[in-house]
Amino acid sequence: MDELLKENERIDDLEVNGFRIIQNPFYFCFGMDAVLLANFAKIKDGARVIDLGTGTGIIPLLLAAKGKGKSWVGLEIQPEMVDLARRSLVLNGISDEDYHENVAPMIKTPVPEGRCRIVQGDICRIREIFEPAVFEAVTSNPPYMRENAGLKNPSDTKYISRHEALLCLEDVIAGAAYLLKTRGTFSMVHRPSRLPEIMELLCKYRLEPKRMQLVQPSAGKEPNMVLIEAVKEGGRELRMLPALNVYGDDGKYTEELLKYYRGEY
Amino acid sequence: MDELLKENERIDDLEVNGFRIIQNPFYFCFGMDAVLLANFAKIKDGARVIDLGTGTGIIPLLLAAKGKGKSWVGLEIQPEMVDLARRSLVLNGISDEDYHENVAPMIKTPVPEGRCRIVQGDICRIREIFEPAVFEAVTSNPPYMRENAGLKNPSDTKYISRHEALLCLEDVIAGAAYLLKTRGTFSMVHRPSRLPEIMELLCKYRLEPKRMQLVQPSAGKEPNMVLIEAVKEGGRELRMLPALNVYGDDGKYTEELLKYYRGEY
Repeated sequence: MDELLKENERIDDLEVNGFRIIQNPFYFCFGMDAVLLANFAKIKDGARVIDLGTGTGIIPLLLAAKGKGKSWVGLEIQPEMVDLARRSLVLNGISDEDYHENVAPMIKTPVPEGRCRIVQGDICRIREIFEPAVFEAVTSNPPYMRENAGLKNPSDTKYISRHEALLCLEDVIAGAAYLLKTRGTFSMVHRPSRLPEIMELLCKYRLEPKRMQLVQPSAGKEPNMVLIEAVKEGGRELRMLPALNVYGDDGKYTEELLKYYRGEY
Repeated sequence: MDELLKENERIDDLEVNGFRIIQNPFYFCFGMDAVLLANFAKIKDGARVIDLGTGTGIIPLLLAAKGKGKSWVGLEIQPEMVDLARRSLVLNGISDEDYHENVAPMIKTPVPEGRCRIVQGDICRIREIFEPAVFEAVTSNPPYMRENAGLKNPSDTKYISRHEALLCLEDVIAGAAYLLKTRGTFSMVHRPSRLPEIMELLCKYRLEPKRMQLVQPSAGKEPNMVLIEAVKEGGRELRMLPALNVYGDDGKYTEELLKYYRGEY
């Protein structure tokens, strides 16, 4: 596998059906939020799935490892991340290799069953890349921080992965609404501090929030993640799941978190 | 006190500074949600407060008992509840007795410090009752159920207290926005299932959600109440508090809930 690895890169075991991922510590590496999202997202059998801002490709990889969905697309703007994610697909034997050009025009060729394609492109120009309403499920673990928050170094890959430098929350949500069929699901992980804006934008684009879960470091601590699932043109009724505690009083992962990781959720 | 009590009514101790409340088991009686809201609401010193859909007057009574705010108004549409609440004010010596007519025209006379006034009126016609932007704080524990949910008996006082028969959520939120000064606070308790609509309407009326807490029956159970505070024309940043568990593993109230009740929150 050495030919798949470039300088500074490593291969990490995803501990699901032998799947592995290539990561580079100098770029953005995936966190617990992505793993929780991949387990939280309900993906129907036969669903064509797209992950917006896929980064390392962690979410399509986990979904493929768990057999959630029929085919997967990861959309990513940064060429270094696109290259990395594509090699992870090859590593796991799920690459849709025939369709890996660097600049994405309107994509009409369907991804074969059991395969994943990484498309390089800008969510803000989604209409030039994909036809409308061609996916049953959209996932996203978008940058959490507002563009003007924190130090700015727009040339930094990590910065772009964490900050709304190249896209804002509305671009992600508008993009999801454009890509989804009616009754398709959009699953996202974000910060609870952005919840009013998230809800406002979901409602604006007729993605009705249907299922939501807060994640808190431990009982009695303020939640620092929110998992949310919206249904395109769904009816009004949110199901709020019990808050998920990451650590127990003993400082170890809680059984509920481990269940999530095992996909027993 | 017998002259203050009518048939079927009883006096309950609020366990705060000797305050008591008149209730009638055939009407809607207050629940834990109202008590949590009165403690959750941050009311600045000197604030003029109004409670929308005040029912028994429980929220103004608790705020007055705790010394939160300078003066209080309760707006209530149902004559039976208005009558009941007014007698509770007399019982506690905080009634603004000079101003208790039954139909409220435009109210310009300020409520004296340390006093509470129950105004009979319809939130949907708030502009005919109050001048705009005359309160620093608005509270509400509105009906939770959509008008078409459950059995319908619009003549039933309990039904009106629980269902959006005479007003909808938008009327409450639009009313709060109209009544509040810039930077004034709107505190509400509601069901988590309505959260998308709540957030959408708060944003629509420029009441920015700033503080929120979910209440769950016990750890690992789905939350069944949400406490939310919004600031008129506030900046975007929600603080999400740790989920509040009502009961512990031992089946008793948790220490965190008792702290709320003691106002130590």
